[in-house]
Amino acid sequence: MEKVNLAQKFDHIPDYWNPRIAGELNGQQVKLAKFKGAFEWHHHEHEDEFFLVVKGKFEMHLRDKVIELKPGEFLIVPRGVEHKPVANEEAEVLMFEPAGTVNTGNLENSERTRTNLERL
Amino acid sequence: MEKVNLAQKFDHIPDYWNPRIAGELNGQQVKLAKFKGAFEWHHHEHEDEFFLVVKGKFEMHLRDKVIELKPGEFLIVPRGVEHKPVANEEAEVLMFEPAGTVNTGNLENSERTRTNLERL
Repeated sequence: MEKVNLAQKFDHIPDYWNPRIAGELNGQQVKLAKFKGAFEWHHHEHEDEFFLVVKGKFEMHLRDKVIELKPGEFLIVPRGVEHKPVANEEAEVLMFEPAGTVNTGNLENSERTRTNLERL
Repeated sequence: MEKVNLAQKFDHIPDYWNPRIAGELNGQQVKLAKFKGAFEWHHHEHEDEFFLVVKGKFEMHLRDKVIELKPGEFLIVPRGVEHKPVANEEAEVLMFEPAGTVNTGNLENSERTRTNLERL
């Protein structure tokens, strides 16, 4: 059992929109990713997603509003809700979600789809 | 759907060792608590627990070692593992665990046992 230092882990992430697994518990995973630019509109049929900004900021676009998230702020996006993260500058984000959740949700074969995630 | 600002939520927590629910997803809960002083040795039979320090610091005592956790560091304590958090100064901690996890685990009737948690 060892602690995880988020800043140290983010230092080892060279790319964007590529979540890595930083921990597992109760069938859920803790994932870390850097965001920059605009992601794609998608939703997750069966998974709620938690996003906590560690550094930087990003906007979560929803069909009816935009929520800006800064360090120390989190948002839970319920299953079924369409969303599109947009980061005008680099953001470091911690996510919690069920193991096996695919980053692009219903867009299973997007260029940005990542499966077989690395472990940090 | 609204974001949660951790600092604002912690400002509304006046006591120690009394987790409050800040979010729910996938049968799990996001809880916030302030730690100060020494908690009790306990374990959770069926739940893994995630602890992330938001502010301050604390030590997680395990039977074979002590892990000091500072802001931006997290620890996952697997089910069955005895642990005792000790905070020499006030710490603000985000936890992630299955809904219904009781703070004192196997010590069901401790003075510090909290059930029917408040929602922030």
